[in-house]
Amino acid sequence: MDIKSYVSKTAQKAKEASKRLANTPAKAKNKALLTMADRLIAAQAHLVKENYKDITEGEKKGLSRAMLDRLTLNPSRIEAMAHGLREIAALPDPVGEITKIWKRPNGMEVGRIRVPIGLIGIVYESRPNVTADSAALCLKSGNGVILRGGSEAVNSNTAIVKILQDSLKDAGIPKEAVSFIEMTDRQAVLEMLKQDKYIDLIIPRGGEGLIKMVTENSRIPVIKHDKGVCHTYVDEFANLDMAHDICMNAKVQRPGTCNAMECLLAHSAIAEEFLPWITKDLKAAKVKIIADAKARKLVKGLSVAKEEDWYKEYNDLAMNLKVVESMDEAMEHIGKYGSQHSEAIVTENYTNAQRFLREVDASAVFVNASTRLNDGGQFGLGAEIGISTTRIHARGPMGLEELTTQRFIVMGSGQIRE
Amino acid sequence: MDIKSYVSKTAQKAKEASKRLANTPAKAKNKALLTMADRLIAAQAHLVKENYKDITEGEKKGLSRAMLDRLTLNPSRIEAMAHGLREIAALPDPVGEITKIWKRPNGMEVGRIRVPIGLIGIVYESRPNVTADSAALCLKSGNGVILRGGSEAVNSNTAIVKILQDSLKDAGIPKEAVSFIEMTDRQAVLEMLKQDKYIDLIIPRGGEGLIKMVTENSRIPVIKHDKGVCHTYVDEFANLDMAHDICMNAKVQRPGTCNAMECLLAHSAIAEEFLPWITKDLKAAKVKIIADAKARKLVKGLSVAKEEDWYKEYNDLAMNLKVVESMDEAMEHIGKYGSQHSEAIVTENYTNAQRFLREVDASAVFVNASTRLNDGGQFGLGAEIGISTTRIHARGPMGLEELTTQRFIVMGSGQIRE
Repeated sequence: MDIKSYVSKTAQKAKEASKRLANTPAKAKNKALLTMADRLIAAQAHLVKENYKDITEGEKKGLSRAMLDRLTLNPSRIEAMAHGLREIAALPDPVGEITKIWKRPNGMEVGRIRVPIGLIGIVYESRPNVTADSAALCLKSGNGVILRGGSEAVNSNTAIVKILQDSLKDAGIPKEAVSFIEMTDRQAVLEMLKQDKYIDLIIPRGGEGLIKMVTENSRIPVIKHDKGVCHTYVDEFANLDMAHDICMNAKVQRPGTCNAMECLLAHSAIAEEFLPWITKDLKAAKVKIIADAKARKLVKGLSVAKEEDWYKEYNDLAMNLKVVESMDEAMEHIGKYGSQHSEAIVTENYTNAQRFLREVDASAVFVNASTRLNDGGQFGLGAEIGISTTRIHARGPMGLEELTTQRFIVMGSGQIRE
Repeated sequence: MDIKSYVSKTAQKAKEASKRLANTPAKAKNKALLTMADRLIAAQAHLVKENYKDITEGEKKGLSRAMLDRLTLNPSRIEAMAHGLREIAALPDPVGEITKIWKRPNGMEVGRIRVPIGLIGIVYESRPNVTADSAALCLKSGNGVILRGGSEAVNSNTAIVKILQDSLKDAGIPKEAVSFIEMTDRQAVLEMLKQDKYIDLIIPRGGEGLIKMVTENSRIPVIKHDKGVCHTYVDEFANLDMAHDICMNAKVQRPGTCNAMECLLAHSAIAEEFLPWITKDLKAAKVKIIADAKARKLVKGLSVAKEEDWYKEYNDLAMNLKVVESMDEAMEHIGKYGSQHSEAIVTENYTNAQRFLREVDASAVFVNASTRLNDGGQFGLGAEIGISTTRIHARGPMGLEELTTQRFIVMGSGQIRE
């Protein structure tokens, strides 16, 4: 079969399965998830063996150490995958919740009910755990899923998908509810992005290149999980001890993540006291600091920030530093250079806190807390499929609720349109 | 300036204006809306004159009577436009509403706040009233809008947009918050659909051809307002008097709309009693009935339904009729041939009503009410920009709330990520 028919046929079957899944009770979905977890653990040796093929192939292709590490499956990572599935099984089922209901003057009751989106396409890169994780979140929220992993992980992914599908069958759910595009050809992704007749939403999980490729070629709505150029603004009315701990955490705790701080904005009224202290501790934590002229006047030995640096996501032990004369200047800077991901203010001033919360445009805006907390688990949403930087449907962490949509129900007693 | 730079520049300026609009208080937005209404009425003679150019041009091009009628502006239509703007001014401002807030174990409060989507692109066809109507809904919900009307209405639209922009200036809102692509070249639309850097959402308003063109060419998420192949299922436990009135209303009250009934499904247990009666009254209302063999056995003189007929949206005084042996057969038929728009059951049976509401997949599902009620005004949402048939962000009538999105706010007291 040619690639086009293969992808279209796969999508069609997955859509049919997703329709049956939409009305499957939570009990069956949870049974499938728990069976998946058990079967993954039972198949550890097999999974490691299949994964070894990918690793060997990757080494031949000259993949970087970091990429090979992301690609690797070992018993503890398989345990973690299984644990994730059990956690998702324990979460409440979002499907069928009536979120609001009201009565109209003509007596009919109009309500909104939460339903699955339908069939979701996930396009992702090397980590094989994304396979189990994405499939589980889609399954629990009643969505069919069609997975397209990177070619470098094809043996690992194929083995994982086989286990997931066997578990679906055990629970009486059509196995095509978790479908997988095995063809590693790039054309297969392009064909997948054209299946707007069957696929309702595409979620790319991976680097900037992948996201760009998907956005440019998709006829299906895409929810992006894009980069984070996140700021912490230390206000003139900040508690500086708190500001210190929040900034250290936002930069150092895990610098490679999208919600880590990339730029510290300090009000000039506190800069003289705050900057020598925080920069000393940041430097002790091996953070490279790229600073504007005002900051460099207060602290010697900082690198010079150029205009293009303010747009940078370092994803590393490096950051920008700028002194501002007002909260407005800070907010303007964030509006210009930020990526609307995670933005924080540290202040004890009520009005400034309220203005910052309402006026700064980002998926999550924090007062007196670290941007690193922008996360589905931290927010209490349970597991997340990513942090959306798209401006429709869902912004910020996407948990199970964000994988559903709401439609209308009407309970009448003979109402007609006048 | 070439088309590409013109469109991109227009989108960029509109985006900048939309950022300022996002934090504009309701008072200023309402002032702009009421000024727009007053100015439209005051400019009646001018608008009719500009519209006459489009009509003359349209007649030369040989536009159909129906198209010329849709294109026409007269004093009563201008009154209606102004009335619509005043109604939107009177609706509550959705922006800034905190829809939910909860406390996490670490003490931080996490909430969801309603914010504008950003910049919305509207691509539409001949009716010039869509210009004022779309601009007003976007403005009230804090969104910038970039309008691209059909070339046949360009003089009317240009005149309307000028009035809207003057009114924005009066209210201290940047006029680019309502932007308009004047270039009638088709390439201008294609360029607009590529501006994913500036435009956050595209809403096409028009026929199937327009929607297809937009979906296939857009790099920006699209919310479609697609066709409706709507069914009414008369259950074996229906109150037949009620069923009669609902079916007549759903087909006859305004057959050209997307929520009108295109197919009546009657349970065999009531068919013998119900069909002769309803078909007689439908025929008296000049409805052509295309029926399956079972229905034709009970009622003479009906047309023969072919397989492809079941997919049809007649948008006219014509409809399909089929006898089913069970609710399951009705739901299967709806799942196969329906367009997930508006679906209704008439029944007195509690379990059937509940199953139909939950299991039928459509933007609005009705028990004992006419599908014609699938409408923002009827549901109490206020004015609507259309009925979404897309499965993400919003399904069904899109009012002001559906033109917003929700982001997160976090109120902390020094929380960091452990």
